[in-house]
This record gives sequence, C-alpha cells and structure tokens, in this order.
Amino acid sequence: MTSSTAYQQLEACFTRLHRYAHLGAMAGWDQLTMMPEGGNEARAEAMAELSVLMHETLTAQETRRLLDEIDPASLEPEQQANLREMTREVRDATVMPPELVEAQSLAGARCESVWRRCRPANDWEGFLPTFREVVRLSREEARIRAEALGCGRYEALLQKFEPGLNLETLESIFDDMRQWLPGLLSEAVAHQRGGELVMPQGPFGERDQRRLGERVMRWLGFDFEHGRLDVSLHPFCGGVPDDVRLTTRYREDECLTALMGIIHETGHARYEQNLPQQWRRQPAGRARSMAVHESQSLSLEMQLGRSAAFVRQLRPWLVEALGDQPAFEADNLIRLAQQVEPGLIRVDADEVSYPAHILLRYDIERALIEGEIEVEDIPVRWDESMQRLLGLDTRGNYRDGCLQDIHWTDGSFGYFPTYSLGAMLAAQLMAAARRAEPQLDARIAEGDPGLLLDWLKTNVWQQGSLLETPELIRRATGEALNPEHYRHHLRERYLG
Amino acid sequence: MTSSTAYQQLEACFTRLHRYAHLGAMAGWDQLTMMPEGGNEARAEAMAELSVLMHETLTAQETRRLLDEIDPASLEPEQQANLREMTREVRDATVMPPELVEAQSLAGARCESVWRRCRPANDWEGFLPTFREVVRLSREEARIRAEALGCGRYEALLQKFEPGLNLETLESIFDDMRQWLPGLLSEAVAHQRGGELVMPQGPFGERDQRRLGERVMRWLGFDFEHGRLDVSLHPFCGGVPDDVRLTTRYREDECLTALMGIIHETGHARYEQNLPQQWRRQPAGRARSMAVHESQSLSLEMQLGRSAAFVRQLRPWLVEALGDQPAFEADNLIRLAQQVEPGLIRVDADEVSYPAHILLRYDIERALIEGEIEVEDIPVRWDESMQRLLGLDTRGNYRDGCLQDIHWTDGSFGYFPTYSLGAMLAAQLMAAARRAEPQLDARIAEGDPGLLLDWLKTNVWQQGSLLETPELIRRATGEALNPEHYRHHLRERYLG
Ligand SMILES: [Zn+2]
Ligand SMILES: [Zn+2]
Repeated sequence: MTSSTAYQQLEACFTRLHRYAHLGAMAGWDQLTMMPEGGNEARAEAMAELSVLMHETLTAQETRRLLDEIDPASLEPEQQANLREMTREVRDATVMPPELVEAQSLAGARCESVWRRCRPANDWEGFLPTFREVVRLSREEARIRAEALGCGRYEALLQKFEPGLNLETLESIFDDMRQWLPGLLSEAVAHQRGGELVMPQGPFGERDQRRLGERVMRWLGFDFEHGRLDVSLHPFCGGVPDDVRLTTRYREDECLTALMGIIHETGHARYEQNLPQQWRRQPAGRARSMAVHESQSLSLEMQLGRSAAFVRQLRPWLVEALGDQPAFEADNLIRLAQQVEPGLIRVDADEVSYPAHILLRYDIERALIEGEIEVEDIPVRWDESMQRLLGLDTRGNYRDGCLQDIHWTDGSFGYFPTYSLGAMLAAQLMAAARRAEPQLDARIAEGDPGLLLDWLKTNVWQQGSLLETPELIRRATGEALNPEHYRHHLRERYLG
Repeated sequence: MTSSTAYQQLEACFTRLHRYAHLGAMAGWDQLTMMPEGGNEARAEAMAELSVLMHETLTAQETRRLLDEIDPASLEPEQQANLREMTREVRDATVMPPELVEAQSLAGARCESVWRRCRPANDWEGFLPTFREVVRLSREEARIRAEALGCGRYEALLQKFEPGLNLETLESIFDDMRQWLPGLLSEAVAHQRGGELVMPQGPFGERDQRRLGERVMRWLGFDFEHGRLDVSLHPFCGGVPDDVRLTTRYREDECLTALMGIIHETGHARYEQNLPQQWRRQPAGRARSMAVHESQSLSLEMQLGRSAAFVRQLRPWLVEALGDQPAFEADNLIRLAQQVEPGLIRVDADEVSYPAHILLRYDIERALIEGEIEVEDIPVRWDESMQRLLGLDTRGNYRDGCLQDIHWTDGSFGYFPTYSLGAMLAAQLMAAARRAEPQLDARIAEGDPGLLLDWLKTNVWQQGSLLETPELIRRATGEALNPEHYRHHLRERYLG
C-alpha cells in the first residue's frame, strides 16, 4: 500500500469516528436538556457502548498499522497536521484498557445522576459512594497515562484537555497568580465601595429573557440554522459544529446572569460553527484545546460582554425586552456587569474572584489524583481555601460548596485550570486584536463587533487544530502565553 | 465452545445492537423535533454510518457462526424464542447485498426530499423519475427476499413488517372486507344524516392543549419518568422503551385532532414502556410487529378513546382546560369523535372510511411490486379506487391523491396493510378483554380504564416477541385473527 493510500484510509476511519461522535454528542445534549430521569440507565449504557466502539476503532491494529505506513514527508502540510492529531489521539486511546474506559463511562453517568439528586438535597454523604468509584477510576487512568507519557499523574490528566501543557508552566503561572490575586481582589472591592448599585427588580419572564438572549446571539453572529438555545441545570455548549446546542438557565428574579451566560456559550458556539469546513470530519478540524475554547467564550463574555461599550449597546435591548427600570440606567448597568463580590458559586463569580475558585479546585483535584488526600477530605480543604482566598464560610453548605460543579462527577479532573488559562489567553488575544485593528473599540462603541469577531475567526476559529497551541498563540499574538495581559486587563477595568 | 456459551455471546452481540439502536432512535427523534435545518446533512451522514455499523454487526461471519453452533434444545423456552428472533433478523439482513441496502438508502433519501417539494406543488411528473428508481430497487429487494423465503415478491416485503403473515391470509381478510365495507360506510353516513353537529370554536392555545393531553396521558398510565411529549410536523412515537418520545401537532382552530393523536401515540407508548423488562436488550423483548403495535394505539384511540363512555370522561377535563362552549356538550362531543365522512386524506380519515384508504394502497403497491403495473399507472388506479370505494373524485389532484403519503418514497411497500390488521386486532382484543373482565365497560364509565389497560399489559405488552404473532393472538383471544370482531364493532358503533 502506498503512503498516500494509507493516509486516505486513515481519513476514512476518522470520518467514521467523527460520525460516531456526532451520535454521542447529541445523546449527551439530550441527556442534560430533554431526557426524563428514568431514561438515565439505558442512556448511560448506550453511551458507554459508543465509547467502547470508538475506543476499539481508534486502537484497532489496522489503525495503528496505517499510521506506521505513512511517510509524513509525502503529505501536504495540513495533512501532516492532521496526521499529528490522529497520532496523538490513537496514542492517548491505546494506553487505556477498554474495560477501564467502559467502567469510567458507566461510573461517570451514574455519579452525575446521583449528583443531580444530591446537590439540591445538600447530601454529601449520599454522593460519596458513587463519587469514590469515579475517583478510583480516574487515579487508575492517571497512573496509566503518566507511565505512557513519562510525566506526573495529574499532569497526564491535564494533557487530555490541554495537549502539551506541562505542569511546571501551569504551576509557575498559578504561583504567580497566587501572589497578586488576593491583593488585586481586595483593592477592587475597596475601589468599588461607595459606588451605589441599583439591583434589577424582577420578575423577569423566561420567554422575555430567552428572546433577549437570542437577539444578542444574533448580534454576535450565532447561526440559528446550525444550532439552538435551550435550558439545562448547568449551562454548556454541546452538539456538533453543524448543529451547536447551547444552554443557559433562567432565574425569575434576575436577568443579567442568564444573559452573560448566553454570551459566554455563544463564544464557544461561534468557535465551533466556524471551524475549518474542509477539515470538518477530521481531527485537524476540531477546536484546539479547552483553554483555547474558553478563551473564545471569555473573549465574548468578559472582554466584550462586560465592557462599558458593549453594555451601552445592550441597554435599549434590555429595556425593550424587559421594560425600563432604574437598574437599567447605563452607568448602573456597567457597574452591575463589572461588580466584584466574592461569592460561593464559581459559575456566578465575577471576573476578579473567578481565578480564586480555580486555584481552590486545582489544589484539591491535584492532591486527590496524586493520592495526597481522599474524597472524605474534600469538604475541609474546600472550606479552608474559601476562607483563605475569598474570606467566605461554606461549612456544611455542600450544595454551594464542593457539590456545586458537574466536572468531577464524570472524572474530568484536570479540566478546571483551563478556565483560567482561557481567561489569560482571552486578554492576550484582545490586546493583539486591538493592535491589529486600531478601530476595534470605536466600532464596538458604534454597535458593531465585526472587527473583533472577524479577527477571532481568522486567527483562532478557522485554524482548528492545524497548529499546536503554542504556535497558534504565537501567530495570533506574536508571543507565548503571557498572563501579564490578563493582570493588566483586570487592573485597567477594576482599579482604573 | 459449548452451545450455551455461544448463546451468551450472541446475547452480548444483540445487547450491543440494542444500544446502537438507542443512539439511532434518539438521533432520529431529535431530527424530527429539535434539529435546526442546517444540521440535516451531518445528521444523515451519522445515521447512515450507524446503519452500516448495525448491518455489519448483524451479518458478521462471527454472528452467523455463533448461530450455527447453538443447539436450541439446550436452551430454556424463552431463550429459544429469543434465538428464533435473532435468527430471523440475521437472515433478513444477510440476504440483502450491502450495495442494494446503500442504493436504497440513497434513493429513498433523494425521493423523500423530492416528494417534500413536489407534494405542495402538485407535481406528479417531477416526482416520477426519482420514485421510479425507488420502485426499481424495491422490486429487486422483493425478488431477493422472495427467493430466500420461498414466497411471493410482495409477500416478502409484507413480512418485513409482519413476520410470518402469508399473503393468502391477508388476501382473504381484505377480500372479505371489500364485500362489506362500502355498504357499511354508506349506511353509516346515512345513519348520521340529520344529526346536527356543533363544531368547536378556537382559538385553542397550544399550552392548554398540551396540558390537557398530558392529563389524558397520565390517566392512560403513561409514565413521564420514562418518556415525554413534544411537537413534530408528523406525529409519531419514537425513542426507546426506557424513554419513549411521542409527538403530536397542535392546530389553533381545532382541539380534538391533537388530543386523539396523543391518545393514539400513548397506545404505542404504553406498549413500549411495558415490554418485558428482563428481555429489554434482546430481540425477544421488542414489540411483536407493526400490526400488533397499531392494535395497541387503536385500542386506546378507537376502541377506548372514541367510545361514548370515554368521551363523557373527557368532557370536564376539556372544559377545565379550554373553557366551556356548546360544542363540548357531551352528546355533541361523542358525535364529533364518531363522525363518519369520506375524505381524500388517509391520516384524517374516520374509523369507517380508513380501511378503504388501505385497500386502495394495498392494491396499487402489490400490483406495482409484482410488476403488473408501472409507476405511470398509479394516478388512474388511484382515481378509480377513490371513486369506487369512497365516491370521491381526485383526478389531477396528486397532492391529496397519490402524493399524500411518505411511505412509498423510501420504499416502505408492504407497510400499509398493517394499519388495517391493527384495527381488526384491536377490536378482537377488546372483545376478549370484555369477556375476561365483565366489569370493564362499567369501570370505564366510572372513570377507570385500569381493567382494560391491565389486560392489554398482561396479554400483549408483557409478551414482547416471546410468542409469534398468531400464537400471541390465539392465547390472548382464544382464536386466530378474525376480522368479524372489527365488522361487529363498526356496526355497533356506527349503525347501532
Ligand atoms: Zn466556557
Ligand atoms: Zn399508529
């Protein structure tokens, strides 16, 4: 077989995997938005079976034989990039025993379902048994992956979401942040003190909020021919690039949380909808990594969505959708969008205290995976960190404490750091976009986010996974990931 | 390998198929209820890939080898039934050349899409070319299956939907119906003449109609922990037994059509939800056949739902949900539910004229598959039959004539007869349930359908495919399928 025939056969294999993944993505979306409780067991089985199938396909001897036969020099540069991604995926799958993959899928689904019941009931004890099994399996995974990659256990999990990120880099970024974050946070709180804040008065109907959200989504270029907006307990962006499913949740007494959540998910969604069309069914056509993904949601939510210029755009739409009231006065709206107030819930956190939530989770999950603590130790660690980082007491409040996130329930350890890496990258990208497009802020102030969106499309969305992350960042911004842009952005916005 | 090990491996293989089917069922439901237009191409690709996977799994040499190794005598009786169903499925898949399966899938998708354009445009000529290819491929399929089964060509297609039904039996049932149906129909129309009918006056809000529908579903025992109700252009019952998804469509100017549609789909849904739990993942745990499935929807819609006793139950709920009006007076409601009026459209037809629509389609599709007529001959045959059976003129009206149904566009020849077989079986089952439970009608009149539902559960739902259809009918009713019960039911209700 020629090298190029082998490559074509490998593409056919990954096209098949892409289609299997489509079915899994839709079943996963349905599970969180539509599925009745009683459907969970059968769904979990079906999705586990799909994981096994995909794992088998990726690790088949035939797949590895094809990989071996290809001479990269015979390929076009973009095909070489695709081959690099294929190789990594096959390697990452091959190290995992199929029984472990299946056990994780089943345990994750079960734990998530238990979590959905235990969280509202504040029932940590009820959550523990199924969660303990998830942790056990993740530790096993970490051990296996670390051995294969020749790195640390937690690092090995991190690399599932952020290929090639080494723990030392992350550590130095986070250690740096540990130095300046608490100071910046208290300065920001002090800086806002005395500014009076008028809170919006509900009730705000769900239908009105949804219409407003859809209007903003359209303004941000979301393509409703290839996606939809629904409701789920925990907002997310799922589906497939041709059919992106994003969700939010509405509160009757509040209107900005759901809206900012929609803007956030729209950032994820536009990335997905604008991945390179010609690589749609291949690994090279996928989103680059979780941190890059998050940088896109935060470019829209934080960099753009909470900027004074954007909030002024928003005001008339808010008034049209929900009626006018004193809280919707422009300067008050800006203060609301930029209010810094340490709280218990990560997803409701403001931009300045958010990294503290990440540091807390990072410390705990790393210790958990490395075997330094056990699941029973989590609440105490959680309380200590909340006290230290945000000055808040969560003792006994599992619901708004260590039971608040979905991530750990299906074993997604190593994911949390990508949120803060994404925030840093978003600030860095925004700075680069401003340099490339000097009219960018003026145009946003006139109601047109096109310069920013087009710049992101060219420099990030259309790149898919054709470049590795460091190279993507360097080409887009002229330098490596540099958290200084983020710190600068926070100082500008909150201490300016 | 021992025979019992082979059987266990075969069960594992069918469990895997069951889980794949779950993903397909959910993606199919989503496609018709939730998916935005632009998602169609990727979805079609994903679902076609799944069909290929399932076909490959069913026809794999390993699967056939396992089948050959099993000694049925070594199995328990229920395992033997399961083996019988497995064997039939593998055989039905194996006889078909993969190229023909693929060609049919492509031609069907193309023809369905042409149909969607041509039907509203009344464009028969535009529909013909793609339809001719579908017929050509279905004739090829019929030839291959007939040879494998040693039966007639149309019969071979019929057996895809109604395993084991021979054409002679169907012929004799339909020939009999041809004798009495036209007379009964004109008698029923004459019998109703003069009875004045007050039509409901809308608008009826969708939300109010949905709440009413859900209330009736609950009364009929639908389990909302394992299913949901949504909206689609063409009502259907999909999903999986653990999570049954049924749909309806609402019209603002009308309220009984959607409600009766919901009752109909609830019949399908209760059958699915109550299939035998211990055989859930195996062929023996599936619904028996299309005719038996339809008998369950019609037991609830026609036998129960349009009975005077049920309609009297319905009245206060209707008034509570939609407000009172003269049309909702009990006797008028009963007349509305039992109105006989020959019309052009099958799906809108009443219980008495519905079989005429089936006879017409049966005659045409049978002649078409046997090669006695060509697609060009369909309109003339259609017009003749409509004139003869229902006294209606459809010349030139393809839209409401031979272009009205979706079934033929993807080559589902042999499906239509199951609607009328289902209606007959429903009447026969109802008669048997009445004999078994003498209090059945009195209890329904008191507002409790439990005796009927429990009888269906025991005698039909819980049987799955453990018995073959003739045996299922015999055990439940004490005799073979006997259309006399149906004729008797129609005479009682419409000439009584
Ligand atoms: Zn995000
Ligand atoms: Zn039906």
